[in-house]
Amino acid sequence: MDALNLPAPGDKARIVVVGGGFAGINFVDHLDTRNYQVVLLDRHNYHTFAPLLYQVATAGLEAPDICGPLRKSFRGKPDFHFRMLEVRGIAPEQQLIRTGAGPIHYDHLVIATGTRANFFGSQDIEAHALPLKTVPDARRLRNHIFQTLERLDMTNDPVERERLMTFVIVGGGPSGVELAGALSELRRHVLSRDYPDTSIEQLRFILVEGADQLLSGFSDKSSSDARRNLEDMDIELRFGALLAGYDGQTATLKDGTTIPTATVIWGAGVTGDIVEGLRQDSLERARYIVDDQLRVRGYENVHALGDVALLTNAQWPKGHPGVAQVAIQMGRRLAKNFNALAQGHAVKPFSYLDKGSLAIIGRNRAVADLPKNLHLNGFPAWFIWAFVHIFYLIGWRNRAFTFLSWVANYVTYNRAVRLVLEPSLEEELPEAEKLTTHP
Amino acid sequence: MDALNLPAPGDKARIVVVGGGFAGINFVDHLDTRNYQVVLLDRHNYHTFAPLLYQVATAGLEAPDICGPLRKSFRGKPDFHFRMLEVRGIAPEQQLIRTGAGPIHYDHLVIATGTRANFFGSQDIEAHALPLKTVPDARRLRNHIFQTLERLDMTNDPVERERLMTFVIVGGGPSGVELAGALSELRRHVLSRDYPDTSIEQLRFILVEGADQLLSGFSDKSSSDARRNLEDMDIELRFGALLAGYDGQTATLKDGTTIPTATVIWGAGVTGDIVEGLRQDSLERARYIVDDQLRVRGYENVHALGDVALLTNAQWPKGHPGVAQVAIQMGRRLAKNFNALAQGHAVKPFSYLDKGSLAIIGRNRAVADLPKNLHLNGFPAWFIWAFVHIFYLIGWRNRAFTFLSWVANYVTYNRAVRLVLEPSLEEELPEAEKLTTHP
Repeated sequence: MDALNLPAPGDKARIVVVGGGFAGINFVDHLDTRNYQVVLLDRHNYHTFAPLLYQVATAGLEAPDICGPLRKSFRGKPDFHFRMLEVRGIAPEQQLIRTGAGPIHYDHLVIATGTRANFFGSQDIEAHALPLKTVPDARRLRNHIFQTLERLDMTNDPVERERLMTFVIVGGGPSGVELAGALSELRRHVLSRDYPDTSIEQLRFILVEGADQLLSGFSDKSSSDARRNLEDMDIELRFGALLAGYDGQTATLKDGTTIPTATVIWGAGVTGDIVEGLRQDSLERARYIVDDQLRVRGYENVHALGDVALLTNAQWPKGHPGVAQVAIQMGRRLAKNFNALAQGHAVKPFSYLDKGSLAIIGRNRAVADLPKNLHLNGFPAWFIWAFVHIFYLIGWRNRAFTFLSWVANYVTYNRAVRLVLEPSLEEELPEAEKLTTHP
Repeated sequence: MDALNLPAPGDKARIVVVGGGFAGINFVDHLDTRNYQVVLLDRHNYHTFAPLLYQVATAGLEAPDICGPLRKSFRGKPDFHFRMLEVRGIAPEQQLIRTGAGPIHYDHLVIATGTRANFFGSQDIEAHALPLKTVPDARRLRNHIFQTLERLDMTNDPVERERLMTFVIVGGGPSGVELAGALSELRRHVLSRDYPDTSIEQLRFILVEGADQLLSGFSDKSSSDARRNLEDMDIELRFGALLAGYDGQTATLKDGTTIPTATVIWGAGVTGDIVEGLRQDSLERARYIVDDQLRVRGYENVHALGDVALLTNAQWPKGHPGVAQVAIQMGRRLAKNFNALAQGHAVKPFSYLDKGSLAIIGRNRAVADLPKNLHLNGFPAWFIWAFVHIFYLIGWRNRAFTFLSWVANYVTYNRAVRLVLEPSLEEELPEAEKLTTHP
């Protein structure tokens, strides 16, 4: 027995994979473990289907619907071992991963840690804005949204009401656009009936984007379609606008504009989730520089995949886009290369097949950039979006329950999961009330 | 506008209901709001279907499946108003409820606060044991169970392994019995396949009960059927045993026995969730003493319902049982009496119709005490249990999704929701690892 209760790999090589995102699970899935022992490490015991986090945040889906338990996904795969822990660093000379539960030896290391929210050094934004990168983030955001509405329904103070009624979304990428659309539909179809004592139609959703268009990376047609759709849905769009600060009471933009708001949702920046310990010259802009065999610069037996890898070539001089398809295809390519090596076959360089880009805005509203310059919007794009997302979910149960939830939401215009599961009632109590609980 | 953004009741009387449990929602549901304004207060914005909490804790159901959003349940009911807040006290002379958000005037008050866990004054048990009274409790317990298994799978230390492998359940009432059965099935059907590196069959589940039989309040036949079933399922039963202390490492029983364990689940004691402010002589054993019109002793316009009410009569000299059916029937009776008063009709005394008792132990295993001394066990009891619980769930969506989850669990022997959604990885790190993150 090795450390962490791991069986010794015997005469196989041990591959340690850090991160159970799209890249990590596709690597494990395609690796032939007759030739390798594989150890998957993650701080969560589940894979997160990140493209649907915004639906958990807006009460359309339940958190477990978009999570795949990692042990279950690879149940029955021989010599696969999962350990739930926090990776603290790499010691490449000794070929060790340092973790909270002790060191793990590797023969090959695959770093697939993805990204984390990047607040560009602003501590007050980090302290008060709500990111949407993880399942706990999504549930906190849902709690916050519905708790804010409950507070709104209990105050007559016009200044406080304006603050509670204003929601600021920072970032006009797919997650900002999808979240804004979902909030608009929530306002229109659900909240207006749930809060008869409050003028729900006065809720303001402000989307703040630094560039002059939405969905950078999409076609101009899709960008402008998304813009027209969000404007139709009464989302206030502010282009060329950057968030400079947020103290929990007032958001301040770079141009000095102030917006009193109880809610700032952060969908603007991410940075590679780097593990300490590799040489600094293997990194560029918080990504691991990899060659077309996905090897990290300067190391023979360390690989990086997905959003945390920086792979440049003639077609992608600034690196590949940080989307699920790149991560999935990198994970599969690397696994197949390992399998080929074990059988004495040649490895192949990674080559990205761009299957297109999709973003959903609302009921029957979406944009799709497909191969051969095909651009769709409206119902056809929405239908493709729904089909693709169901297809890529992990497990038949999640596919079935998500599909049924969407059918129910579509038919009833409802969102079932509008629960404040972890209310924080105390923090809002006036001091006087805290002191005098006896009347 | 009144305080808390509430519309003035006009010439109607305002009834304030504290608590959205079975009693509170059945009262609101049957009250004719053409005659009364009704204000429902709860610290959560949802009703909890408490009989299924143990399934959320053991990964069989998702938390939202057993929650009914209160605003949605009464959407469209005229002059119904919900406010999510913490009730701090009653000022009966001024007819005011004090809350975290300000005072609310009532003409009639209905207290339906239910019970909370009672640790009989033991601060170390309260600090370290896990109760199962609320949805957040159930999710914490699920997190704890699966996090404990992850830790078990990472240590070779035999002392620590014994501690992590031992689960103590305190209390042999329905919730303790149902939880023990669910844990046994989880061990047998799910965990043994999820944790191939650990001898999962060595997990110990110890049920500690102070009396000499399980399910007090059930028939002797059902008690002994439950006992035989749990013994079949390798649950260790300790009768005449009381938990004296638990410091997070070792559980100590009253007779001095010590059990090293990382998990103590508290299903032993509850106490009425009393609101401060009424006369002391209206209380007995932390329950409001009510007459057969459910009026609290000493008050004309204060009522209590469900588990927090103490109603004694010839048939129930010690008070009615603390079960959902009593709460449901009390809520309906009181609402109908208010409706009758408004129309000049006579009110009726509360009379409990005992529909029987059910407890589930596992797959095809349950016990049922039905009217006319009919006792069932095995598949027929299990089938009735499933039917009754689906029937009483709130809302078609929850019924459908719970039914489908049960079918999926039954057919696949699986439990889908085995996620540690809020891991606490840091606390277990050795100090040395915390200090040296750089290798």
